[in-house]
Amino acid sequence: MQNLRIPGPTPCPDEVLKSMSRQMINHRGPEFAQILNDVTAKLKQLFQTKNDVFLLTASGTGGLEAAIVNTLSPGDKVLSVSIGAFGERFATIAQQFGAEVIPLRFEWGQASDVDAIRQALKQEPEVKAVLVTHNETSTGVTNDLAKISSVTKEFDKLLLVDAISSLGSIELPVDDWQCDITVTGSQKGWMVPPGLAMVAISDEAWQANAKAKMPRFYWDFAKARSYLEKEQTPWTPAVSIVFALSVSLDMMLKEGLANVIARHARVAKMTRQGIKALGLAIFAEESHASNTVTSIAASDGLDTKKLLKILREEHQIVLGGGQQKLSGKIFRIGHLGWVTEEDIERVLEALAIVLPQAGFGGEKLK
Amino acid sequence: MQNLRIPGPTPCPDEVLKSMSRQMINHRGPEFAQILNDVTAKLKQLFQTKNDVFLLTASGTGGLEAAIVNTLSPGDKVLSVSIGAFGERFATIAQQFGAEVIPLRFEWGQASDVDAIRQALKQEPEVKAVLVTHNETSTGVTNDLAKISSVTKEFDKLLLVDAISSLGSIELPVDDWQCDITVTGSQKGWMVPPGLAMVAISDEAWQANAKAKMPRFYWDFAKARSYLEKEQTPWTPAVSIVFALSVSLDMMLKEGLANVIARHARVAKMTRQGIKALGLAIFAEESHASNTVTSIAASDGLDTKKLLKILREEHQIVLGGGQQKLSGKIFRIGHLGWVTEEDIERVLEALAIVLPQAGFGGEKLK
Repeated sequence: MQNLRIPGPTPCPDEVLKSMSRQMINHRGPEFAQILNDVTAKLKQLFQTKNDVFLLTASGTGGLEAAIVNTLSPGDKVLSVSIGAFGERFATIAQQFGAEVIPLRFEWGQASDVDAIRQALKQEPEVKAVLVTHNETSTGVTNDLAKISSVTKEFDKLLLVDAISSLGSIELPVDDWQCDITVTGSQKGWMVPPGLAMVAISDEAWQANAKAKMPRFYWDFAKARSYLEKEQTPWTPAVSIVFALSVSLDMMLKEGLANVIARHARVAKMTRQGIKALGLAIFAEESHASNTVTSIAASDGLDTKKLLKILREEHQIVLGGGQQKLSGKIFRIGHLGWVTEEDIERVLEALAIVLPQAGFGGEKLK
Repeated sequence: MQNLRIPGPTPCPDEVLKSMSRQMINHRGPEFAQILNDVTAKLKQLFQTKNDVFLLTASGTGGLEAAIVNTLSPGDKVLSVSIGAFGERFATIAQQFGAEVIPLRFEWGQASDVDAIRQALKQEPEVKAVLVTHNETSTGVTNDLAKISSVTKEFDKLLLVDAISSLGSIELPVDDWQCDITVTGSQKGWMVPPGLAMVAISDEAWQANAKAKMPRFYWDFAKARSYLEKEQTPWTPAVSIVFALSVSLDMMLKEGLANVIARHARVAKMTRQGIKALGLAIFAEESHASNTVTSIAASDGLDTKKLLKILREEHQIVLGGGQQKLSGKIFRIGHLGWVTEEDIERVLEALAIVLPQAGFGGEKLK
């Protein structure tokens, strides 16, 4: 079996896959209503929120677009806290829809600096919302969201959070950390195939929603709310993925959220230690290295493209490459969702064999 | 087994369901690239088009939004040809994004009148695009799209087509009929669970796209095109539903498009005859009655809500009710995708039993 270790889609447990092959039902009938209510209640537990939670039939990026268009108006100033490719994407969406984006960029591989955020909010009193990536999948860095939230709320701004690759895997108590919009995606820590974005909306976000003038129809949270009152979604949902999510949420609740989070921390630590034992360096600032994806710097002659190809073709192990300006400079190991120490051991064993085949150590030989 | 006879989601064949439980793969790897190329090529065959065809992870409604925002600018005039709830939806999306919508409404249950469309286009020379629903699911009416296309092209306007519940079931040669944007959804005639919208884009639509100023990111066709050149989708696609679509498209191609369309026509005719034999009337203007969904007028004391409830609870048959202003006034039988005469026979047999229990014939007794 292939060992799929990219930061999403993640492998799905057998029970989850089995539920995907369930026959269709009426998405406006009583049977689906019960599943939708149940899934929504379970998500609220794992989000640690009393906020409204909706399912959107979309990738995570659709959830980010929904966060923007439901809370902002063209011309609104937003502070974009960006530490990588997904931070840039969130900002670009806001810009496309007419927000005035004030970029606050940190070096890729670093977490954002909370004092710099405070400084930016002081300088730009008209900022309406702060956009932040909790876990930056492209660099393997987790921002200190609790602190970013504190400073955002000091200035009484909306906090829009890309939690696509963190929620359900890394601690993120949505209500305690006062996240106004929180977005995640089914194919990450949730152990479910891609096709659903899940979003939580705070009271403050609802107040913003009532005034927000960006055009919206498919993403309209007000429609999602009025349909959820009827135990439906506004548009035909990805029914099979809702079936699968129901099963995976039961698994997560059975394991217990604290245990799920501890398992991710344990597996991630083991990954970092194993990588360093192989003579490689973690690309991310280590104090903020992500517990869902580890980024590894290409050094000492390593050809990452060759590495990934040999791992895939000869060892049935699929890792991620670097994105955009990190292409060829890093590779990434996803360890979120359905993952144990054994999965990572297999990766580390294969790396020990393949690294020299992919040029690693070549610089020393020169 | 439940006999799900709503106009989508439709039942999926066993092979399709089985493919849904396949384990995840890397959506940016060579294996998915091959599937994506293959599915795209097969869709082009069934769309009868050389146009670009893209998969969007969304419901059909997302596909409609994509059609609007990719071709229009705020302030653009569009002629909305509307014969029911989904025609209204298409117009509302255009309006939400700032188009000036000129509504041309026909009575629900009727097809649109081509002369009236010509008249409207004469009166409004600045119209940029015509929005039309090929098959109006809410009323069970199929518009004469070939003629609507002719008149639209007489005036050299863009033709944006909601073909969600027609394409793959009812004749619609996309290129011959000069459709500029054509939108369909996986959970209709395609026999696949919901979660994918499929769209075709003509050269003229691409020219409009280059100038279109409506804000877009998730739906951006230019991004879809540049990623498809790399054999990818811009955002993580609903991988399982692509697996399923690949299987169902093979089944459709094996049956042959002409045979698929003929089967739909045959089953629909049998449905209408059976309904009339029960003493009920078809709600739709019969010359334009749909071959994918039959709408039946509630008459003679019939309580449609009671009817649907008894059918569901006692006969495992799920039919659709009326939507919006047709609520309680009609009920609907979906016969698209994986459907045979036997499925409809079961429905008709059950109706013979349940109709009197739901009040039908009560008026005569008074």
